[in-house]
Amino acid sequence: MLIVMKHTAPPEQIEHVIAEIQRRGYRAEPIAGRERTAIALIGDDGRVDANVLAALPGVVRIIHVSPPYRQVSRETRPEDTVFDLPNGSLVGGRNVVIMAGPCAVESEEQIFETAKQVRNAGATILRGGAFKPRTSPYAFQGLGEKGLALLAAAGREYGMPVVTEAVDPAGVELVVRYADIIQIGARNMQNYSLLREAGRSGKPIVLKRGLSATIKELLLAAEYIFLEGETRVILCERGIRTFASHARNTLDLTAVATVHELSHLPIIVDPSHATGSRSKVIPMARAAVAAGADGVMLEVHPEPERALSDGAQSLRTEQLPQLIDELRVIARAIGRDLEPRRESASASGVQSVAGTV
Amino acid sequence: MLIVMKHTAPPEQIEHVIAEIQRRGYRAEPIAGRERTAIALIGDDGRVDANVLAALPGVVRIIHVSPPYRQVSRETRPEDTVFDLPNGSLVGGRNVVIMAGPCAVESEEQIFETAKQVRNAGATILRGGAFKPRTSPYAFQGLGEKGLALLAAAGREYGMPVVTEAVDPAGVELVVRYADIIQIGARNMQNYSLLREAGRSGKPIVLKRGLSATIKELLLAAEYIFLEGETRVILCERGIRTFASHARNTLDLTAVATVHELSHLPIIVDPSHATGSRSKVIPMARAAVAAGADGVMLEVHPEPERALSDGAQSLRTEQLPQLIDELRVIARAIGRDLEPRRESASASGVQSVAGTV
Amino acid sequence: MLIVMKHTAPPEQIEHVIAEIQRRGYRAEPIAGRERTAIALIGDDGRVDANVLAALPGVVRIIHVSPPYRQVSRETRPEDTVFDLPNGSLVGGRNVVIMAGPCAVESEEQIFETAKQVRNAGATILRGGAFKPRTSPYAFQGLGEKGLALLAAAGREYGMPVVTEAVDPAGVELVVRYADIIQIGARNMQNYSLLREAGRSGKPIVLKRGLSATIKELLLAAEYIFLEGETRVILCERGIRTFASHARNTLDLTAVATVHELSHLPIIVDPSHATGSRSKVIPMARAAVAAGADGVMLEVHPEPERALSDGAQSLRTEQLPQLIDELRVIARAIGRDLEPRRESASASGVQSVAGTV
Amino acid sequence: MLIVMKHTAPPEQIEHVIAEIQRRGYRAEPIAGRERTAIALIGDDGRVDANVLAALPGVVRIIHVSPPYRQVSRETRPEDTVFDLPNGSLVGGRNVVIMAGPCAVESEEQIFETAKQVRNAGATILRGGAFKPRTSPYAFQGLGEKGLALLAAAGREYGMPVVTEAVDPAGVELVVRYADIIQIGARNMQNYSLLREAGRSGKPIVLKRGLSATIKELLLAAEYIFLEGETRVILCERGIRTFASHARNTLDLTAVATVHELSHLPIIVDPSHATGSRSKVIPMARAAVAAGADGVMLEVHPEPERALSDGAQSLRTEQLPQLIDELRVIARAIGRDLEPRRESASASGVQSVAGTV
Repeated sequence: MLIVMKHTAPPEQIEHVIAEIQRRGYRAEPIAGRERTAIALIGDDGRVDANVLAALPGVVRIIHVSPPYRQVSRETRPEDTVFDLPNGSLVGGRNVVIMAGPCAVESEEQIFETAKQVRNAGATILRGGAFKPRTSPYAFQGLGEKGLALLAAAGREYGMPVVTEAVDPAGVELVVRYADIIQIGARNMQNYSLLREAGRSGKPIVLKRGLSATIKELLLAAEYIFLEGETRVILCERGIRTFASHARNTLDLTAVATVHELSHLPIIVDPSHATGSRSKVIPMARAAVAAGADGVMLEVHPEPERALSDGAQSLRTEQLPQLIDELRVIARAIGRDLEPRRESASASGVQSVAGTV
Repeated sequence: MLIVMKHTAPPEQIEHVIAEIQRRGYRAEPIAGRERTAIALIGDDGRVDANVLAALPGVVRIIHVSPPYRQVSRETRPEDTVFDLPNGSLVGGRNVVIMAGPCAVESEEQIFETAKQVRNAGATILRGGAFKPRTSPYAFQGLGEKGLALLAAAGREYGMPVVTEAVDPAGVELVVRYADIIQIGARNMQNYSLLREAGRSGKPIVLKRGLSATIKELLLAAEYIFLEGETRVILCERGIRTFASHARNTLDLTAVATVHELSHLPIIVDPSHATGSRSKVIPMARAAVAAGADGVMLEVHPEPERALSDGAQSLRTEQLPQLIDELRVIARAIGRDLEPRRESASASGVQSVAGTV
Repeated sequence: MLIVMKHTAPPEQIEHVIAEIQRRGYRAEPIAGRERTAIALIGDDGRVDANVLAALPGVVRIIHVSPPYRQVSRETRPEDTVFDLPNGSLVGGRNVVIMAGPCAVESEEQIFETAKQVRNAGATILRGGAFKPRTSPYAFQGLGEKGLALLAAAGREYGMPVVTEAVDPAGVELVVRYADIIQIGARNMQNYSLLREAGRSGKPIVLKRGLSATIKELLLAAEYIFLEGETRVILCERGIRTFASHARNTLDLTAVATVHELSHLPIIVDPSHATGSRSKVIPMARAAVAAGADGVMLEVHPEPERALSDGAQSLRTEQLPQLIDELRVIARAIGRDLEPRRESASASGVQSVAGTV
Repeated sequence: MLIVMKHTAPPEQIEHVIAEIQRRGYRAEPIAGRERTAIALIGDDGRVDANVLAALPGVVRIIHVSPPYRQVSRETRPEDTVFDLPNGSLVGGRNVVIMAGPCAVESEEQIFETAKQVRNAGATILRGGAFKPRTSPYAFQGLGEKGLALLAAAGREYGMPVVTEAVDPAGVELVVRYADIIQIGARNMQNYSLLREAGRSGKPIVLKRGLSATIKELLLAAEYIFLEGETRVILCERGIRTFASHARNTLDLTAVATVHELSHLPIIVDPSHATGSRSKVIPMARAAVAAGADGVMLEVHPEPERALSDGAQSLRTEQLPQLIDELRVIARAIGRDLEPRRESASASGVQSVAGTV
């Protein structure tokens, strides 16, 4: 941590800052520049509150040299976090995982039909919402526990672990009863009570980046989960809020490389919520894998026109097989791979590639 | 609601959209333009899910003509919402309310000393945090219930209602026991479980705008509270996240005039969290009142250098009297006023103004 | 400048960076932290290209401790820049200057009528566009030289210096012939050829902040002008582009206090272009003065409904006198003042204040 | 165009708007909704100034139904714009073009060495800056005409057309003498004098998206060029300015699909300027091609540590061959292809793919 002094700061103020640093048990090393002095705080263990030092007289600003997160940092653990799910699906490392399913579970028929099709297309994880946080209180908010039960049943039927969202601390217990992976939604990325509860649940967690969250904040949110003992955290980029209104959000794919530099955690991408429109989901899913994402989360629906939520961004189930084939070729082009689930399809995928090559 | 069709959409697709609108019980009125057809959906009562219509074949986009919020809309209730607090303090209308206090309650001495000074300076509401949501899990997170009890005691001692934050649904009950006004923080603006619980608590609510929330989303969050029966909602602008990094956030004062146009709810401004630095709090507090805000929320601390959180943005208690005097003059310049609390000080305030005039 | 090394950087890389710094003639001071080494570059005179150092092996990032601008920095010149215009109007210091006029000069009648009314209302500078950069090539682009001549004539008639925009280097010469102050528009803030040409013109310059410009970039643009010899630069905040779409742009009033901290240059505010709608111009003009702006630039039109451009954001001329009276009261509340131009009105302004106090 | 009236607008105001529409020669069709009336303006030919209508009494806002650009719109010309360059390189359609070269031309040796290596790696267009607009007036601003001459000579030597930036209208003539393609930089996207001059130069144009430009504004800037007669315009996404600071800018790859929907023009991506760091250029170049970009523009340098500008974001020349091979595989996976320039390498590229498949 570097404490930059005003260029007019008198020696007493510099001395005072040094004393305050030492009083806290750290070493202070002043650096006298051409115009001003900066004071390096040596030994920061993440517990120094920069705001307190920023309030000292003569301080113009604080510069963080080391990241404030610890356990999730690549510096703490240089090798990638890799773990497997109940079905043996690997998350992280060389594998690219495909999670797919409807935005919301709507009926038994809908979720079973979707599950069958996404599994046949090559996805290995089934997604589906039972509790839907919605901007408008008048919009469809999910089937609740009934939705959870249907989702779990469809996952069992087709051999796929299921991922679904918990929206409040009290609801975690219920979700845990049905889900294999708990999702924390973008609106709740800084809902610390929820993060702590989820971190104690014993389940792996998909943690979505908030609409206006920096990467540092995303990693600090993961740090909250780590502090409860859960290290199987999958980060998820799903678009940020910017001035650009041509898509629902701006999918920030550079975040993938950034997370890989700063952290050992895997990061997947959700192009469905990020773009909000079907025609953009396919190119951005391809781009996500090419950018090095550890997976993609896709919304599909057998009949998007009849979907109770987010129909405009849901792929038709029949679009999925070709997309997954393309994602496999792209993954291989950069030294990654998809799990070899859809045996026959996978083979034809290779052939079709060979054909275009 | 206007459903805009692709310029290439064939008559069958237009017919299909019309049929889908009618099937939902609304009237459809096609408007054939020079290049494309748009279809007006007449009679939207806020329950139409635009995403579903957007998913129909041939639809290029949906344009919302009427706002999706209802009860908080100025159109539903043309006159301002005005209500009073336990001490008779008026919120809304012509009055400009001053809420002040420390970021976090730290000790009995600190909160009582601050309470005395802010009351003497002319503030009428005491603020103070007991549960602090912090970006880093390593930062000070508040005294919890002990902090609530100290805050309530200080408020009683100096005759000021107190406002403090509830951070999760389970915690609302505890906060209600001590607080006169419940604050929902920016990170929780779309924490719907919390909004619902707070809306059922019987207390007025300060609802802070999320860092990346649009005004529409802010009003929809207030609508969630209204639907639980609580109509005493005070909105609060506290800065948005933009590319501009010269202050912690970008204080969006234009939001004040916008909210006043769209809604009957009062809106206050928190320049302390928005700017993050003491030297900017004073000009922005003045600007907030000049922009028409129904109040300001200010962080003050007797010794900011010793504050356990956010010291850099806390005014010194001795800066408050002059600031409040200036705010009173500015309020009067635009036909508003502060409550005439600090009788003697108010008088000297007038004199000092007369002096500068 | 601080060069932060990777925590894994071996001693050779650290040595190499030190050597590269010394090779350029600066002093290098390594600071060995708990986890990594940072190297302070001492003596930076603004000519070190950070990108080159950032490209050295083992460097993780560069932190700028001192600002890259020099001549416009408050550190170079602690006292405010204050200068006067041909009519004796003061810019900077305690004075708050009011510039007003139509978006575009449309006709002799329109500009003379507007000039008369804005002068009577208390404005001291007349604004008006003759060359209008427009997003759409199909929109009205101004009267060109004819507009310049009409503007200059109206300014002479009513004793007001005129400010108008130059849009390209070749056009500066023409604008100089008619205008007292040259405006550089937001789109051209980083049009360096134009900045240089304007900086050589011998006229004071209003430099508008670009829609996505940081304060550092704004000050560096002013530095380009200073390097040509012109030091009478008036910065202008006119809104930035953010996700918030409830107004045309987000007026960033905190920029006023920031500029005053970092630079000795005056900064005015243009609430008309920033908000884009008449009902928001008045509150934001008041807020600008309360925030400490050294002036405001207002669009007014005798008949906004007939304006050829930006009618929606133009105040009606009859709204101006009361607004300027309010601005005067607000200015005085914070120790500033407007020039006592509108003698009779100014007097009544004081009385009306006395009345409300 | 839809003119939305206030819900309180009396019939006279509605009549007035209708009359104003008709006075301009368009058809007005009122749509009486449940709460308010909206008036459709039928027959908009792009020449209606929305701001003028927005200023009419009772109007709450204007909604644009059709896009304001015409000639560049996909609706005007459904098929893709495809054209070839002097060396027969195709731009647009199925081809993915690779432009590469140094940020700035620095010396004969540097540009010839770079040209040779990028050509051998498979690039077909040589880029290099001779006039560099720099944020700081103290930074290296390019070699000027000498740089242009060296670039042109290197292009001739290695059979590659060259692309370089023109920074002001007066400079276009000079650039035209040496360059095959004129680049308009991000800062100048709305420099209309420059756009017009470039549009009259007879050369194809790479038009970079401004840091805060919407897609609509980008297309309107291209429309300015079209109106001068030049239709060979290549758009370029190079990152937008957002709150996210983990990379220099936020590369908005969704813009690629959006442009392809709205316009017939090709769009390439510049991951070097967008990300600002070498380690992110490679994943984002891959992602750009996967997202459907019609090309990428890459900065490479034989010795980035010695580069006079932007060394941190320049790939080493030896990184280029493998990257281009990967881009070719990705392009083929989605039905596109790179030009078969690097014959031998291309063959080995296929083999290495076959190897990983």
